Amino acid sequence: MTARLENFFNIKSFCVVGASTTPNKPGNVVAYNFVNSFPGKTFLVNPRGGELYGNKLYQSVLDVEDDIDAACIIVPAKYAPQALEQCGEKGIKNIIVTTGGFSEIGEEGIILQNQMYEIMKKYNLNVIGPNCLGIYSPALGIDTMFLPDSKLKRPKSGPVSIFTQSGAFGAAFIDQLSGLGTGQWVSKFVSYGNASDINETDSLEYIGGDSDTKMIIIYLEDFKNGRKFMETARKVSLKKPIMGIKANRTETGAKAGASHTAALSSNDAIVDDLLDEAGILRVITWDELADCVLAFGTQPLPLGDRVAIITDGGGAGVMASDMVSDCNLKLAEFSTDVQKKLDETFPIFYSTGNPVDLTGSATAEDYRDAFEAVYNDPNVDAIVNLNIPCIPDLDINDYVKYTSEFAQKKKKPFVTALIGGEEGTKATNKLLAKDIPVFPSPGRAVRALGMLVDYTKYLRKHGVDPKSIHLED
Amino acid sequence: MTARLENFFNIKSFCVVGASTTPNKPGNVVAYNFVNSFPGKTFLVNPRGGELYGNKLYQSVLDVEDDIDAACIIVPAKYAPQALEQCGEKGIKNIIVTTGGFSEIGEEGIILQNQMYEIMKKYNLNVIGPNCLGIYSPALGIDTMFLPDSKLKRPKSGPVSIFTQSGAFGAAFIDQLSGLGTGQWVSKFVSYGNASDINETDSLEYIGGDSDTKMIIIYLEDFKNGRKFMETARKVSLKKPIMGIKANRTETGAKAGASHTAALSSNDAIVDDLLDEAGILRVITWDELADCVLAFGTQPLPLGDRVAIITDGGGAGVMASDMVSDCNLKLAEFSTDVQKKLDETFPIFYSTGNPVDLTGSATAEDYRDAFEAVYNDPNVDAIVNLNIPCIPDLDINDYVKYTSEFAQKKKKPFVTALIGGEEGTKATNKLLAKDIPVFPSPGRAVRALGMLVDYTKYLRKHGVDPKSIHLED
Repeated sequence: MTARLENFFNIKSFCVVGASTTPNKPGNVVAYNFVNSFPGKTFLVNPRGGELYGNKLYQSVLDVEDDIDAACIIVPAKYAPQALEQCGEKGIKNIIVTTGGFSEIGEEGIILQNQMYEIMKKYNLNVIGPNCLGIYSPALGIDTMFLPDSKLKRPKSGPVSIFTQSGAFGAAFIDQLSGLGTGQWVSKFVSYGNASDINETDSLEYIGGDSDTKMIIIYLEDFKNGRKFMETARKVSLKKPIMGIKANRTETGAKAGASHTAALSSNDAIVDDLLDEAGILRVITWDELADCVLAFGTQPLPLGDRVAIITDGGGAGVMASDMVSDCNLKLAEFSTDVQKKLDETFPIFYSTGNPVDLTGSATAEDYRDAFEAVYNDPNVDAIVNLNIPCIPDLDINDYVKYTSEFAQKKKKPFVTALIGGEEGTKATNKLLAKDIPVFPSPGRAVRALGMLVDYTKYLRKHGVDPKSIHLED
Repeated sequence: MTARLENFFNIKSFCVVGASTTPNKPGNVVAYNFVNSFPGKTFLVNPRGGELYGNKLYQSVLDVEDDIDAACIIVPAKYAPQALEQCGEKGIKNIIVTTGGFSEIGEEGIILQNQMYEIMKKYNLNVIGPNCLGIYSPALGIDTMFLPDSKLKRPKSGPVSIFTQSGAFGAAFIDQLSGLGTGQWVSKFVSYGNASDINETDSLEYIGGDSDTKMIIIYLEDFKNGRKFMETARKVSLKKPIMGIKANRTETGAKAGASHTAALSSNDAIVDDLLDEAGILRVITWDELADCVLAFGTQPLPLGDRVAIITDGGGAGVMASDMVSDCNLKLAEFSTDVQKKLDETFPIFYSTGNPVDLTGSATAEDYRDAFEAVYNDPNVDAIVNLNIPCIPDLDINDYVKYTSEFAQKKKKPFVTALIGGEEGTKATNKLLAKDIPVFPSPGRAVRALGMLVDYTKYLRKHGVDPKSIHLED
């Protein structure tokens, strides 16, 4: 069975209802997006007629003679029911309504949204929205995000698909991903807003089966159909990781949510168990989300929970070790050969246990030697590489080179934290430019790694070999 | 009684034992620091004699005729006891030993450190170190941090004092503060390393009584004298906030710590209670520390826990509200007048409850109007200002202007989170350049505010009026 959402992405023709000639207005931006990027046919509708970006402006969608696979309605809420009716009449089955002013604003909007619902049923339509950003796929040239590139930068094509109840969350996260590393991150993006029809389960069904999607990021405040969503998640999470935020965790959050997308609160402890049981890796803060993208989007799954820490600062090593424990990871015990190698390689005042503390005397070559020693140790499942770059004898460019080399081997997860001021920031940017996962603190590096290990554990628990999952490339 | 550590800062003459003519070597850097910045007399000692930075190099500290208030010993560990002996003979009472290679490296080092200890007792010396960065005070021109400015940027003079068991932590944090906002942050910095003499309690006694210090940041892995430290903290925390990291929280961390500064682990639940009871605000991750500096260093204490949230994204509002609950804060109920004003000012599809959701239609002026309405509401103790800058009609420069204006009123804490890509980063930098507290996620903004409220609650519990504490200039 084809997931309903596939009808929105697998299209040869698209219509923008409410195409505007005023620069940077939503209807103008979406028209521009499709005319410039969509390889299929684009039709633009504006009652005043004329021309836009070299395309004819049809006065009504009913004037278009060709068949249309999907449309986006970008007209004020009060005109939306009429626009939807005409789309139905025209035989367009898949409609995105980005406009706000429906159930989220109270009584008046609920009446309008109910009108829309009746039309939807009458014509048997698939509807995304209202009150949403709609959909985005850079590889397919599909983009209903009505904010111009000057306001909202678009990430390029990559392994991550995202679906979100909050359009603003989606916009901010898309914007953030565009600036993360090479910016090559997004496969499919879905913002379904009030979820009058297409909801979280439809999104997960499609994205879960999409072969271009290697990992899934979600933002939810409530569930339209929690049971079905969890059932779907249980299947999908055995094939690719699902992670993200389920907000509305608290009564206070629920109160805020109530005036937003009309979300109902749920008992968070139950939600937490359900997410866990369905293999959804839950994060609490926004910062953790981009950290997940970096870790899952660039590194392989670990085959166990035994971590080697390499550091030039004892304190950083202790903080990382505390977080190793918090994340239910273990400090690896090096195999005899590796331990011998470390003891022989380094001066007596380095600490060659785990964490390997290269101290303030560390050079970039010390890091390289330590990486080489521990990377292939069968007792080590993952490496945490901590660096405080201000120490005197460390050549930061060489350190960046060795770090890149090992992070790109991708036999085991290799995560880095660079801590400090200007030099740390510069080195961070150099590494990120190659999509090397680097974090601003030991805790965040370990936590990102912990998420990878959690996923490995989940897979194993359900009889799936983590080696069968290919996250990177 | 004068705190022992005061003897290191209240000085008129200083001697660098181990001044080096090789550029960027530790003994060269410290010599440079004092010759260039210290307003008192600087004496440099190097057995080979000669001259450095226009100052004579004495072959021995015993050759110096003047009295010397304090000295820094920067010679290899094996020569350190002899150097300390000579300083004792010369009558220098306050000695910083930055060199590593003592108790932290095991048996051989312990023997050396014991030798040092005997000399220290013989001459009744105050000793900071060994294995440390020593001390730094930009206003006093004191700087034994042996890393050159090209490696370790120095923050300028400001309200924050720091003491740390880990030198690497200290270096990284100092480096980070130099790039935070205007970089005007540090009053006194103390890295005491192995704490053979001066320890966490000495540090707190001095810094606690230092009138230039408005807030105290600590990094500890263990206590030399936990009971005395907590007693001191209980007194100090009624006058100025103490916050920071107590690492070694877990057995794993303790194992890492054992090979580092020879710290003993403690039961963390007990430590947590003790810190809490002594008014020390504990943070877990590195990221939170700089967030604390921004919040405490720039905003007044709130007089209560009732928070107003203003946002242009519903999801951001929900996440912030969840964190409001996590941090034991409350969403304010606006007073009747303020509620009326909000209802009258904004269109029906804005949400004028709390969070005030200005939606994707928000303009900078909407933010200004919302700030104006809620800032003086007697029912509001603090403001959380959330912005996703990619929305179409928001002029980001005007938004930055209004945010600056209200964050600088300093009658109530006003914290901001800017979420998104390039435009968000630019606006963040503009605000930080004025020391306006701005955070990269709703959660971090609320958590920083939560720390301010926690401190207010602690003060109230102990009968201290939070209005009597002046954090911000």
